[in-house]
Amino acid sequence: MTAETIAEMARRAKRAAPAIASASARIKDAALEAMAAQLEARVEALLEANARDVARAREEVAAGKLGQAFVDRLTLTERRVRDMAAALREVARLEDPVGGEDRAWTRPNGLRVAKRRIPLGVIGIIYEARPNVTSDAAGLCLKSGNAVVLKGGRRALESNKACVAALRAGLEEAGLPADVVQFIDSTERSAVRELLVQEESIDLIIPRGGESLIRFVAEHSRIPVIKHYKGVCHVVLDATAELEMSREIILNAKVQRPSVCNSAETLLIHRDAVGRVLPGVAEALLAKGVCLHLDEAALGVCREQPWFDPERCLAATEEDYYAEYLSLDLAVAVVDDLDEATRWIRTYGSEHTEAIVTSDYAAAERFVSEVNSSVVLVNASTRFADGGQLGLGAEIGISTTKLHAFGPMGLRELTTTKFVVRGHGQIRS
Amino acid sequence: MTAETIAEMARRAKRAAPAIASASARIKDAALEAMAAQLEARVEALLEANARDVARAREEVAAGKLGQAFVDRLTLTERRVRDMAAALREVARLEDPVGGEDRAWTRPNGLRVAKRRIPLGVIGIIYEARPNVTSDAAGLCLKSGNAVVLKGGRRALESNKACVAALRAGLEEAGLPADVVQFIDSTERSAVRELLVQEESIDLIIPRGGESLIRFVAEHSRIPVIKHYKGVCHVVLDATAELEMSREIILNAKVQRPSVCNSAETLLIHRDAVGRVLPGVAEALLAKGVCLHLDEAALGVCREQPWFDPERCLAATEEDYYAEYLSLDLAVAVVDDLDEATRWIRTYGSEHTEAIVTSDYAAAERFVSEVNSSVVLVNASTRFADGGQLGLGAEIGISTTKLHAFGPMGLRELTTTKFVVRGHGQIRS
Repeated sequence: MTAETIAEMARRAKRAAPAIASASARIKDAALEAMAAQLEARVEALLEANARDVARAREEVAAGKLGQAFVDRLTLTERRVRDMAAALREVARLEDPVGGEDRAWTRPNGLRVAKRRIPLGVIGIIYEARPNVTSDAAGLCLKSGNAVVLKGGRRALESNKACVAALRAGLEEAGLPADVVQFIDSTERSAVRELLVQEESIDLIIPRGGESLIRFVAEHSRIPVIKHYKGVCHVVLDATAELEMSREIILNAKVQRPSVCNSAETLLIHRDAVGRVLPGVAEALLAKGVCLHLDEAALGVCREQPWFDPERCLAATEEDYYAEYLSLDLAVAVVDDLDEATRWIRTYGSEHTEAIVTSDYAAAERFVSEVNSSVVLVNASTRFADGGQLGLGAEIGISTTKLHAFGPMGLRELTTTKFVVRGHGQIRS
Repeated sequence: MTAETIAEMARRAKRAAPAIASASARIKDAALEAMAAQLEARVEALLEANARDVARAREEVAAGKLGQAFVDRLTLTERRVRDMAAALREVARLEDPVGGEDRAWTRPNGLRVAKRRIPLGVIGIIYEARPNVTSDAAGLCLKSGNAVVLKGGRRALESNKACVAALRAGLEEAGLPADVVQFIDSTERSAVRELLVQEESIDLIIPRGGESLIRFVAEHSRIPVIKHYKGVCHVVLDATAELEMSREIILNAKVQRPSVCNSAETLLIHRDAVGRVLPGVAEALLAKGVCLHLDEAALGVCREQPWFDPERCLAATEEDYYAEYLSLDLAVAVVDDLDEATRWIRTYGSEHTEAIVTSDYAAAERFVSEVNSSVVLVNASTRFADGGQLGLGAEIGISTTKLHAFGPMGLRELTTTKFVVRGHGQIRS
């Protein structure tokens, strides 16, 4: 694909954007339903296209260039296609964020001012292999009134093309221009670079994938990017933390799904709680297969326990405190007080998500006030830092840059506001 | 200044940021008052420093390198210093945006979720010559709980340094760290480049100045930038526009202050209103010294008028429709209907500000719905597209990128939100 082709696709999306921006919720929801039905009707074609992608990926696995887990994520089944359709219907059921007015007021001269929600315009999504991102992202952009330019991973190219054909057919069925969904049919990284300089046509770029993809996008984009690099999430056990709640929350935060960004990576324990809660908590973590990286004070306590296991109770280094393990590893440190915990989070954290377990009202309020991560929880697991879990309805991504949105992003975060001013002839003096 | 010095200043601002982020409104307002008092107490030192800047600028004027208007803007007087102090006191009177909760809800599992306003962290302001920007920007950042790194224009260096010394003294008097306000004491553009890559310390860059400065910043920044390049603002006279209201609004929008971004650059007139309103409107504009750049239809009507002046009723070219004149020039074109007006604005506009004059309810509502510029007005002058006029209290800048904020930005736009989640031991299943 030439640079000019990509520029033209971006322009087409921009030309189609007003039609979707002004479409009523009824029309957008009908389009989502038609897109879902098209996916279901084309399930055989989708599976055939996917089989070609999977065959190529298997060759790479055989050649030792790729892990089997990749093939598992890439593979579509009839069930997975139905799940993609179901997700589009879920989005149809969400409230339309466009047109609502957040705030309105009247000026002394009688001007009535309102901030009305409008779509961003055109959104570029750059993602890696999972084909369901194609329909999920297109659905969320459509419902929020935006046109979208999709650039999927090269290993899912055939699957994505078949999926986009279905989505575009659904749009046309509902009387909307197919150009609302654009797909970059290219496997080259130069296509990504070209997309990132279409600042005249594209309003926002959302990269979804590994850290290297995200860093590449952030470095080359002339368009605003919403991104997050990593989640080094903390659980703090305060002086008054109950043992049982502490144990359940850190187990859930660490063990339930260690590979995701909202799992806990560091456990901080108030000095006054160490003797009371650390042994029980550490024992439970070890029983679940967690490897602990302990600071001196915590290691000292663990060494005295009957269950002490020198293979999985290691001495922590400074690097452990910065680590996003994404595995069954956990750093553990003792802090003198809440101030030290807050400073620790500021030093080693990623401003993603932090939780405190406490029975002390003042400690809870201080933690909530002083920790400015995107999600701050009291007496709940870090795993709730998720658009769906927080009640945003769906999640297009998560932002750890503080601009526009900070934290999990739903439909509302795919919109902005314009000022609407109604007068009766006022002029400025 | 070395690269390392600038990195260290940014880090210092970041280290000071938590102190200002958690400061109460009372403390911040006391600091603003102390800063204002320091400016007043140091008026002689400020004027002396400024005199050195002005002397150098006068040499450049004498050498023909600079216009006299520049020197006028650069020059401080006792009155102007008092105005700077008064502006800080104004900011102290504004509502504190930090800590408020925009929305809160409860999840089915009992988690209570709120979106609480927090400061962005550290803001970098890069600006040109006017010394009052130094105190204005510092005041707005302080009140919104942010630390600030200031990089002023080289021709105001001495004035800015004296001003920053006063501001920092005020901060310390109020018990806040002086490091909340950093000033880059350098006249080199390389200092700007260095500032723009401090993405580990700085959360937002706001450039204030001419288009070339803004483009330089946008191109080199690794930090999100809030910017606007230009304002090509439209006034649309609908079929039902009243003559008198049309005349007053376009006169105000074009003539009151033609050099600013929210002045009108193009007048669009509905075909059905041309005969009724164009002659009166055009005559009034000519009487105020405006030069009209008319499309064929509008030129035809003007030619038949007794006041027709071929020197100031010119035939428009395509370039006129894209022009941000910032002078007493106005493009005028006839459109067939509201659809054409909307398409015109989409083609030639800058998404800044557009106004319609109409007596027709449906036309007003359609215009407000379909035009997605940052400020859309009905029966009022484009000159109201301003933070102060819209009631934001003060304006730090205006954004025509749609991310984070779109349109005039006040204190609230210098904040973001974090999710605060309160539970009683919930874990994710």
